[in-house]
Amino acid sequence: MDKNNYCIIMAGGTGSRFWPMSTVEHPKQFIDIFGNGESLLQSTFRRFEQVCPRENIIIVTNNIYRGLAEQQIGGLRDYQVIYEPMRRNTAPCVAYAAAIIRRLNPQANIIVSPSDHAIFDNDEFTRTILESLRVVQTHDWIITLGIKPLNPNTKYGYIQYNENNVLEGNNKLHEVITYTEKPPYDMAVQFLNSGDFLWNAGIFIWSLPTLEKAYRRYLPDVAAILDTVDLDTPYEDVEKIYSTCQPISADYGIMEKADNVHVIEADFRWSDVETWQSLYESVEKDENRNVVVGDNVFTYDVKNCIINLPSSKTVVLQGLEDYIVAGDEETVLVCKRSEEHRVFKFESDIEVRKNKQEK
Amino acid sequence: MDKNNYCIIMAGGTGSRFWPMSTVEHPKQFIDIFGNGESLLQSTFRRFEQVCPRENIIIVTNNIYRGLAEQQIGGLRDYQVIYEPMRRNTAPCVAYAAAIIRRLNPQANIIVSPSDHAIFDNDEFTRTILESLRVVQTHDWIITLGIKPLNPNTKYGYIQYNENNVLEGNNKLHEVITYTEKPPYDMAVQFLNSGDFLWNAGIFIWSLPTLEKAYRRYLPDVAAILDTVDLDTPYEDVEKIYSTCQPISADYGIMEKADNVHVIEADFRWSDVETWQSLYESVEKDENRNVVVGDNVFTYDVKNCIINLPSSKTVVLQGLEDYIVAGDEETVLVCKRSEEHRVFKFESDIEVRKNKQEK
Repeated sequence: MDKNNYCIIMAGGTGSRFWPMSTVEHPKQFIDIFGNGESLLQSTFRRFEQVCPRENIIIVTNNIYRGLAEQQIGGLRDYQVIYEPMRRNTAPCVAYAAAIIRRLNPQANIIVSPSDHAIFDNDEFTRTILESLRVVQTHDWIITLGIKPLNPNTKYGYIQYNENNVLEGNNKLHEVITYTEKPPYDMAVQFLNSGDFLWNAGIFIWSLPTLEKAYRRYLPDVAAILDTVDLDTPYEDVEKIYSTCQPISADYGIMEKADNVHVIEADFRWSDVETWQSLYESVEKDENRNVVVGDNVFTYDVKNCIINLPSSKTVVLQGLEDYIVAGDEETVLVCKRSEEHRVFKFESDIEVRKNKQEK
Repeated sequence: MDKNNYCIIMAGGTGSRFWPMSTVEHPKQFIDIFGNGESLLQSTFRRFEQVCPRENIIIVTNNIYRGLAEQQIGGLRDYQVIYEPMRRNTAPCVAYAAAIIRRLNPQANIIVSPSDHAIFDNDEFTRTILESLRVVQTHDWIITLGIKPLNPNTKYGYIQYNENNVLEGNNKLHEVITYTEKPPYDMAVQFLNSGDFLWNAGIFIWSLPTLEKAYRRYLPDVAAILDTVDLDTPYEDVEKIYSTCQPISADYGIMEKADNVHVIEADFRWSDVETWQSLYESVEKDENRNVVVGDNVFTYDVKNCIINLPSSKTVVLQGLEDYIVAGDEETVLVCKRSEEHRVFKFESDIEVRKNKQEK
């Protein structure tokens, strides 16, 4: 395995859309959302072990999740889990991990990846990533994974490409013509219908020099992290530098501006596991078009439902169509799939009542 | 309080319609189904304390529920809880308790009542029972409580009476013209429409001599219990006598045949709490026509539902109409109200799967 291959796994998100299983205190990257015995972080880590030496994988998480990553992934070296002192979106997060990698290996080629996405064909994923790593060794390019869009989702970045423009003899690798982060709905529909667009999966591959150049050019305040943070930098100093950084995503801060962004078409099913709906769309359904996680779920006349319950609970469901049924040890949610956006309201209503009861 | 007043509470049923809260091991009479802090047995016992001296109340339950009644009702004397060695329906059950009462007080006037019904006006109930007890002191009558029917339920006994035929100066007390246990549906509809019928609530009032006479005449094999069982009869001997009794209900065995049955109209809401539906019909609904038990239930767009969950569980329900949502610590059921009859199937499916897993 190429010793220059590195991976930055971003695991600081507070995703609590999957309440009651995920909460701000225990967000979705740390949860076994597919019921396959692995958290999303664990699956992500294992996936990147196929392309990088294990000790070259750096997990960036938030100070409030101290210990969680180490607990889920054993035998990590000290520098492999780093803690952001505050939320500043993804650009500072990547810079922080890149600063560490810079001290370890200035020849690094780096994959940047969220910790909480799902990939449904690991072999094809590995091939795509290895090919991208090979290309960025000799090209000053930012390669991003492009996913064939399934619907006019307005939460994603859309990459326009020309499929006849084949690079490096790889008919999946193309120049990016335009990049549009989170388009309005009508525009997303046009993008989808044109057939010339891919979703940005938020997984980038670039060499360390390309990364540095991009930060210094487009985000000079964030680039300061690269120069000042070392393996031994005291936490207070990281805190100080972080507080001077603007909170900005790598997508807005770099991808939208850079002229060396390239896209590699992904030939595997992918999900950002951002909503119950995206989870439902991306996984296999049973004969009643249900997605069921939980060893003790009994369904009768249940269709098009997504069910995720701990095996310690016996749950009998009768006569439900298009519902989410989810729970942890203490809490159960039954909610129409079309209403999942209200989960935050439910969660806050519970909080309010609990606070009242405690008074 | 009249020392001759006695009560027999029948608490041996295996009612598990309210699964998962009630099971054969812990049937509904021992459960706080209304979430008011009392089991149905506890409410029943408290209700009869208004008409009988406490020590005159005898609870008949089954050998498999040993200890449960004593646990729920403190300070009972030994003879106040008796255990049937086997299931023989209600006629032997009443005879067993009557045999005990016969040794305690041959002048007894006896109320016979199920342990698992609900009465929604205790004062009116007390008045009705006291009036009935007064009448049977001087009349060789069997008085049964009659409930104004709400629907053509085919599970009940129907009492035809003539409301112009007023007895003892009480315009609620009438001779019974006919008695029909569990009529076919069309007949139940006719009964309902005629306005001349009352439901038999299964609560009888009679003197001990009247009871003895009825048993000796209509159920001589069961009457043997009256002659042979004493306060000190060894359990094996009770077992022997029981095994010779036919299993028959007091309704079929005596009420349908006796010519001295009278009915007293009940002026209170009553429920035999036999199904979620009967429970739903009998209790007050909130503004969305929901019946909710459980301190931590949160409902959104939920209508016409019956919800019964332990307070240790937080449950969020969205977009449900006409459902039962019920649970205990380990189990949750979500089921359309119209499908509650399938609960036994659900329970047995779970049993089958658990047995498979254990193998």
